[in-house]
Amino acid sequence: MTTAHITPPPSPSVGASAAGEIFYPHKHLLGIEGLYPHELTGLLDLADTYVEQNRRTNKKKSLLKGLTMINLFFENSTRTRTSFELAAKRLGADVINMQADSSSVKKGETLLDTAITLNAMHPDILVVRHADSGAVKLLSEKVSGAVINAGDGQHEHPTQALLDALTIRRRKGRIDGLRVAICGDILHSRVARSNIHLLNTMGARVRLVAPPTLLPNSIDHLGCEVFHDMREGLKDCDIVMMLRLQLERMESSYLPSVREYFHFYGLDYDKLSVAKPDALIMHPGPMNRGVEIDSLVADDINRSAIQEQVEMGVAVRMACLDALTRATRNAEADQ
Amino acid sequence: MTTAHITPPPSPSVGASAAGEIFYPHKHLLGIEGLYPHELTGLLDLADTYVEQNRRTNKKKSLLKGLTMINLFFENSTRTRTSFELAAKRLGADVINMQADSSSVKKGETLLDTAITLNAMHPDILVVRHADSGAVKLLSEKVSGAVINAGDGQHEHPTQALLDALTIRRRKGRIDGLRVAICGDILHSRVARSNIHLLNTMGARVRLVAPPTLLPNSIDHLGCEVFHDMREGLKDCDIVMMLRLQLERMESSYLPSVREYFHFYGLDYDKLSVAKPDALIMHPGPMNRGVEIDSLVADDINRSAIQEQVEMGVAVRMACLDALTRATRNAEADQ
Amino acid sequence: MTTAHITPPPSPSVGASAAGEIFYPHKHLLGIEGLYPHELTGLLDLADTYVEQNRRTNKKKSLLKGLTMINLFFENSTRTRTSFELAAKRLGADVINMQADSSSVKKGETLLDTAITLNAMHPDILVVRHADSGAVKLLSEKVSGAVINAGDGQHEHPTQALLDALTIRRRKGRIDGLRVAICGDILHSRVARSNIHLLNTMGARVRLVAPPTLLPNSIDHLGCEVFHDMREGLKDCDIVMMLRLQLERMESSYLPSVREYFHFYGLDYDKLSVAKPDALIMHPGPMNRGVEIDSLVADDINRSAIQEQVEMGVAVRMACLDALTRATRNAEADQ
Repeated sequence: MTTAHITPPPSPSVGASAAGEIFYPHKHLLGIEGLYPHELTGLLDLADTYVEQNRRTNKKKSLLKGLTMINLFFENSTRTRTSFELAAKRLGADVINMQADSSSVKKGETLLDTAITLNAMHPDILVVRHADSGAVKLLSEKVSGAVINAGDGQHEHPTQALLDALTIRRRKGRIDGLRVAICGDILHSRVARSNIHLLNTMGARVRLVAPPTLLPNSIDHLGCEVFHDMREGLKDCDIVMMLRLQLERMESSYLPSVREYFHFYGLDYDKLSVAKPDALIMHPGPMNRGVEIDSLVADDINRSAIQEQVEMGVAVRMACLDALTRATRNAEADQ
Repeated sequence: MTTAHITPPPSPSVGASAAGEIFYPHKHLLGIEGLYPHELTGLLDLADTYVEQNRRTNKKKSLLKGLTMINLFFENSTRTRTSFELAAKRLGADVINMQADSSSVKKGETLLDTAITLNAMHPDILVVRHADSGAVKLLSEKVSGAVINAGDGQHEHPTQALLDALTIRRRKGRIDGLRVAICGDILHSRVARSNIHLLNTMGARVRLVAPPTLLPNSIDHLGCEVFHDMREGLKDCDIVMMLRLQLERMESSYLPSVREYFHFYGLDYDKLSVAKPDALIMHPGPMNRGVEIDSLVADDINRSAIQEQVEMGVAVRMACLDALTRATRNAEADQ
Repeated sequence: MTTAHITPPPSPSVGASAAGEIFYPHKHLLGIEGLYPHELTGLLDLADTYVEQNRRTNKKKSLLKGLTMINLFFENSTRTRTSFELAAKRLGADVINMQADSSSVKKGETLLDTAITLNAMHPDILVVRHADSGAVKLLSEKVSGAVINAGDGQHEHPTQALLDALTIRRRKGRIDGLRVAICGDILHSRVARSNIHLLNTMGARVRLVAPPTLLPNSIDHLGCEVFHDMREGLKDCDIVMMLRLQLERMESSYLPSVREYFHFYGLDYDKLSVAKPDALIMHPGPMNRGVEIDSLVADDINRSAIQEQVEMGVAVRMACLDALTRATRNAEADQ
C-alpha cells in the first residue's frame, strides 16, 4: 500500500487541475509531511474552483454520485465533521456519519475490527479522526478505500493546513517567502505540525512563538525559528496564526492561569502592532476568546481571516475528495 | 437585515402560491408575531399542495437541489428535527444535522461563533432550536442564509403554529371566527405564544385555560379571554388545544401533583362534553398521557387531530423552505 | 394487517428475482419464523445481484427514489444501523436516523406514540431495533409503512440470518444438508434464534453448542441437536457459527470467568480441528477477541467469513428494501 509518507513518487507529475488528470498520485491523505510542492499546489488549484461553486445557490455536482464516504470520528468535532459532510454531499456522494460514542467501540471492539468491518461495506472514502497519533495510518493499511486523516492525536491534520494555505494564497497571492508566526500551544497541536510541514515545503519562513512548556522537546528538525516572546516573534510577520489553548489535553498541574496566558501570549492589537500593517490574523477554531485571542482582533473585518478559513475548508475538502477518487473514477469510466 | 418582527412590509403583496411568486417577503421565519394574514394564508396554501405530495410513494421534488440546510439544535427534539430533515430531503436539499451536545459548544465556543462558523459554509437555510428566548433572532442577524426558528426558549415556535393552523383549516374549512381554547402550561409554552399570535391574526377567538401559576404575569396584551376552570373555558369551543406540562422546565417547588393536575386540567370526556360536539382535540406532542390528557381522548379516532398535526408538520416545513428560498432561487434562475 | 408470523400465504408464488415480480408477499419482515423456503431463496437471489453492484465504484440505483426510510434504534448499533443506511442510500431513498437517546423517549413518550408520530410523516420503511422482544411487532401493527426488525430483545434479527445464509450459500454452493454448529451464548441471542429458523427451513442440520446456563430452558421445539462440549459439537461440521458473549445482558452473579469460558467454549484451532477441514468460521460481530474466539482463528484468511458477512449484510438489506417496497412501487407505476 503506497502512502505519501513512505514512498514519494519517483517522477512527480505536473500540478494541474485539468479534468480527469491525476496530479495527486497517492492513495490516502494521511499527512502533509512528505508531499511535494506541486502536489500541494495541485490540490489548492482544484480547491479554488470549488470556492466559486460554493458561493452559488446551486452548489451541487454529481462527480461522486454512487460513491460512499464514511465519517468515522473517535473524537467530537463540529466544524471538521460538518465540513467533510457538506463537501461530500455537494459532490453527490452518499455520506454515513459514525460517532465513536454511539458505536461498537463501547462494546469493546478494537479500532481495527471497526475499520475492517466498515471496509467490508465498500466505502470509497473513509474520513477518520482519532485521539491517538498514528491511529489513522494504522487503519489506512487495513482498508481498500481512500483514507483522509481528519486529525490524529498530536500528529497531523492535513486538510486544516491545506485550508490555511488556500486562505493565505488567496489573500496574499503567494505563500513562498511569507513570514508566518504560529503562536501558542504548539505542543498539543496537530494543526501546527501540519502547517509547519506545508509552509516549509511551500517556501514560507515559519516562526514558532510559545512558552517553553508548550513546545515539543525536540523541535530542531522542524526547521523553524523559535521565540518565547510575542513581540519578538511577531515582528514584521505577514501572517499571525494563533492556536487554540487545548486545556482539555493538559494535566491539571500544567494548566496555566488563563489571565497570565493572555497577558503574555494572547493576541491583542498591542502585540499585533509589531507585525506588518497588513498582517493576516488566523485561527483554526473553536476560539477561546480572551484566552489566546482578544475578541476585537478576532472580529477585525479587514485583517481577520477566521471565517474565510472555514469557507476554504469546505472547498479544500471537496478538492481532496475529488483528487483521491479520480483514479478509481477514471478506471470505471474506461471500462 | 429585515425581519418580520421589526419592519412589516409597507405594501403587502397578495397571498398566492403560483410558481415562483414571492408572497412571503421576509428573509427569515423567526416568529408569527408581526406577520400579515395574507402571508400566513400564502404559506398555508402552499403547504396544502405538499400534503398531497407526501401521501404519494414518490415524495421527492428537486426544488431545493444544490441547496444546503443545517439543522442546528441546542435542545433535543425528535419530531421537529425529523420533520425539518424530511421536509428538506423531500425537496432535494442537502441536510446537515448538528446536535449541541456533540458540537463545539462543549469546548466553550459561543453561540455566535458557532453561527458565524456555519455561515461561512454557505448554508442556504439554518433551522435553529435554542433554550434561550431570542437566541435565534440574535443568530439570524449574523448569517447570510435564511433562518427558521424551530423553538427558542419560551418565545416562539412558528412552524408549530402554522401546522396547527393548517390542521384546523383542513378540518373546519376556516380559522376565522372559531373559538379556540389553549389549555394547560401556557407559562412555559412557545407553542402557545405562537398559536395565540397566529389565531388572533387570522380572526379566531382565543381563550387561555390554566391555573394562575401556569400563566404569564402580564397577559392582557395577548388579547385573549382567560379562564381558570376547564368547564368554563371549554364551553362551546370548536378547538381544544392541549399543551404539554413541561415538568422539565419547572423548579421542583412549583411542581404540581400530577394527579391533582389531571383532576383539574387534564382533558377527559367529561370536561370535553361542554365543548361543541364536533370540537377538535389537538396536542403538539410529545404527550404526557394521564397528565394533561386522558388516553381515550388522545386516541379518539374522530375528534383527535394529533397524528394529523404531525403529518401537516412536514408539509408546512416544506412550504416554509420553499417560500424562504424562492427569492434566491429566482435570482439564480434569472442569471 | 398481514404478517409473516400469523398468516403464511395459501398459495406460495415462485421464488424469483425478475424485475417487478412479487415473490415476498408480506408487508413486513419481523422474523424468519414462518417464512417459506422459496421466500428466503427469493430474497437471497435478489441479494446476490446487489453484491455485484456494491463492488463497483458507482453503487447507486434510483429504485427507491422519493421513498423515505427511518432508522429507529432504541439500542445502539454501529454495523446494523450503518448497513441499513448504506443500503437505503445506495437505492436512492431518503434516510432519517433516530437514536433513542436523543429522542422524545427521554421525555416519557411511549413506544407506540413514537411509532404513531413517525407514521404520520409517511415513511415507506421503518427499520426498528428495540431491547424488548416483541416490541417491533407491536409497532408494526400501528404503522402504514413496511417494518423491518433490526433486532428485538432476544427474539429475532432476521436480516442477520439472511446475510449469514447468503454468505454460506456463496461459499458452499448450498445450505441444504450442511451441518452447522451455533456455539456460545444462545440464551441471549436473537441472532441464534433467527439462524435456527432459517437453517432448519432451508434443510441444514443445526447443532447448538453451549453450557447449560447459556441455553434457553425449553429448546426441544427448535429441532436442533444440543451439545455441551465443543469437540463433540463441532465434529464434522461444515459451518462453525460463533456468538458474541453478551456480558452486557447478564446479571453479575451469572457472569462466567472469561478465562474459563474461553478454555471451554472459545473457538481456537485445537477445537476447530474436529470440524471438516474446510469448515467455515462465522461471527456476527462485534467480536470479543480472546473470549468466544481466538484472534488467529478470527483472522484466518481462508476459513473466516467474518468480513464477508458484513459485506453480504448491505446486499441483503438492499434486497429486503427492494422486496418490501415492490408492491407499493408497482402500484404507483400502474397509475
